Amino acid sequence: MKRSFIREILESIDKETISFAGGLPSVDLFPIKDLELASSKVFLNPDAMQYSVSNGIIELREKIAKKYCEDGFDTKPENILITTGSQQAMYIIAKYFANQAITIEEPSYLGAMNIFKINNMKLDPCELVNDGVTKATFRESFLKSALAYLIPDFHNPTAITYSDEKREFIANCVKSHGGLIIEDSPYSDLYFDKKHKTISSMIPNNSFHLGSFSKTLVPSLRIGWIRADKKYIDALILIKETIDLHSSGISQHILNEYLNDDKKYEAHKANIRKHYKEKMEIFCDGLDEILPEFEYVRPKGGMFVYGSLNGYDTKALVEKCMARKVVYVPGSEFYATPRVSSEIRFNFTNATKENVREGLQRIKLCLNN
Amino acid sequence: MKRSFIREILESIDKETISFAGGLPSVDLFPIKDLELASSKVFLNPDAMQYSVSNGIIELREKIAKKYCEDGFDTKPENILITTGSQQAMYIIAKYFANQAITIEEPSYLGAMNIFKINNMKLDPCELVNDGVTKATFRESFLKSALAYLIPDFHNPTAITYSDEKREFIANCVKSHGGLIIEDSPYSDLYFDKKHKTISSMIPNNSFHLGSFSKTLVPSLRIGWIRADKKYIDALILIKETIDLHSSGISQHILNEYLNDDKKYEAHKANIRKHYKEKMEIFCDGLDEILPEFEYVRPKGGMFVYGSLNGYDTKALVEKCMARKVVYVPGSEFYATPRVSSEIRFNFTNATKENVREGLQRIKLCLNN
Repeated sequence: MKRSFIREILESIDKETISFAGGLPSVDLFPIKDLELASSKVFLNPDAMQYSVSNGIIELREKIAKKYCEDGFDTKPENILITTGSQQAMYIIAKYFANQAITIEEPSYLGAMNIFKINNMKLDPCELVNDGVTKATFRESFLKSALAYLIPDFHNPTAITYSDEKREFIANCVKSHGGLIIEDSPYSDLYFDKKHKTISSMIPNNSFHLGSFSKTLVPSLRIGWIRADKKYIDALILIKETIDLHSSGISQHILNEYLNDDKKYEAHKANIRKHYKEKMEIFCDGLDEILPEFEYVRPKGGMFVYGSLNGYDTKALVEKCMARKVVYVPGSEFYATPRVSSEIRFNFTNATKENVREGLQRIKLCLNN
Repeated sequence: MKRSFIREILESIDKETISFAGGLPSVDLFPIKDLELASSKVFLNPDAMQYSVSNGIIELREKIAKKYCEDGFDTKPENILITTGSQQAMYIIAKYFANQAITIEEPSYLGAMNIFKINNMKLDPCELVNDGVTKATFRESFLKSALAYLIPDFHNPTAITYSDEKREFIANCVKSHGGLIIEDSPYSDLYFDKKHKTISSMIPNNSFHLGSFSKTLVPSLRIGWIRADKKYIDALILIKETIDLHSSGISQHILNEYLNDDKKYEAHKANIRKHYKEKMEIFCDGLDEILPEFEYVRPKGGMFVYGSLNGYDTKALVEKCMARKVVYVPGSEFYATPRVSSEIRFNFTNATKENVREGLQRIKLCLNN
């Protein structure tokens, strides 16, 4: 598995290193007080400490289902499976489809590619451009695989957002030819302008829609979910139960108590969006001024800026950067097919505003050395 | 997977049903106040809410390693991998050994057998008697598989405890022929008289020793661990990371804060042992009086009483019992090879003292109807 180099980068991070590498949300924005309050309520109920059901506590599944319904996507608690982060959601689905082929975007989320590989799935990459996968490459691959893994909102790593037209194209492809999509949506609530319609809502019985509280609330709860047709959820529960019986009950109950005040959560997400948009603008302003040779498009949401330092091998470059105490993830790491790449994924949510310019200046210094 | 019948039993449990079925610890004994106190400290540290390392937070791994050292089993934090319960510990190991053969006891823990099956492992059962596996059947199987899954302390479902001689026999088998054992020890701290020496400590480089806080503290934390040679831990971390990045950070930090007062935890475990021994005696006294036809040996620890109702098909019997609002798990469910069985696993930790006699009387009524 292609993990060692990113691990090397992440492990090189010390107090002096400015990191644009990991996909870490901003600690400053964690609603600690509200989570503490929620947590104190959990301990009033000893039964919350006992073994629980494998599909996740009903109160939490009800709340997640309600959110879908509010977005016009008819969903019942029985359509929801609670997982240990959306990473485990993907693992469970991949275990279900083990040994089959899967259409993926290229580049794509490395963690997902590793999941597919460990389950002996054949990765069939298709081309990704500014408004989503290209129609020809997607159609060709999907007609063979009948299963696709996509990140349509604020994609990791490329930060692109699928256009409405591409969303409809994919839904129509599934309607015409059958098959299933796995729509990974950890960043969907981190939009700067508007929330996009999920592809899954157009094909509710032919999709796995994956969500997470790691990016909008806190990662350490490790709570994500799958929304799918009941017949798939019922099959996936058996795998979930075999893997770990159920996800942390403490995490589920704390989250459930926190979500009892829905207005608070909505206000919190609005606040994150505002701050992340500011951070994105500071980061991109810094890029334009300090690294004008970096070609990119400003993202419409999410946590990443992606682009190209034409003429540079950014994997070789990051080694120099590590010595100068600044890191990012080179684009090469996100490709299923090995290559030299001039691309870079920058995370803009984790570094402080003050560190952004300093970090970019350190990279600039590495360009000519 | 053989889960549907136990699921049916567990799902039949309502307020009126007395359950001797699940392996549930006693809610009355959960140290809620101390966990609440620990939890309140966690929220003082926002970094505890961020993404964390895949092998588990270092403070917790240090504490677990220290416990091993106190028991004379030299262990470093690098020998420990934190998992989402010991269920996930088994899953990760099974994923590592996927498609291989594995020696198991018969009967054995159903959750483990399902894990091995889902990872396409070939189950090779050997015979289990009152002091452990029989030497001849174990040797024959292990020489072929070189991998064994064993529950030497207060076995699930049979409640047996391996003798010192059998422990040494297995260790010597591994020393002579190579290979590895997976020693599953969720009940080891629930001894009534004395703590037993682990087989793993005799073969530290050829064993996976699995532990859990689900039985001694609370299940809903979903925190277990693997103790193994560093080279195995390093390989298993990659699988763990792929499956769910890391186990609930909230759970890990609450647990770590709780364990900061080690005397409190030791006193808590001593209290559980005392209460469970009492519960076991009440249960067995009830059995002797109300169901004298049930043949069994009083357990030396753990959560189960196992034995035989000679002449009865206990799977057919439990259907009648369900109608009379009392349930247990029939022995047939714990065998890899399908069979009619007169055996029963009773859990004695979950039902209240008052309900034990009533439950056994309901079973008695079913015997002749």
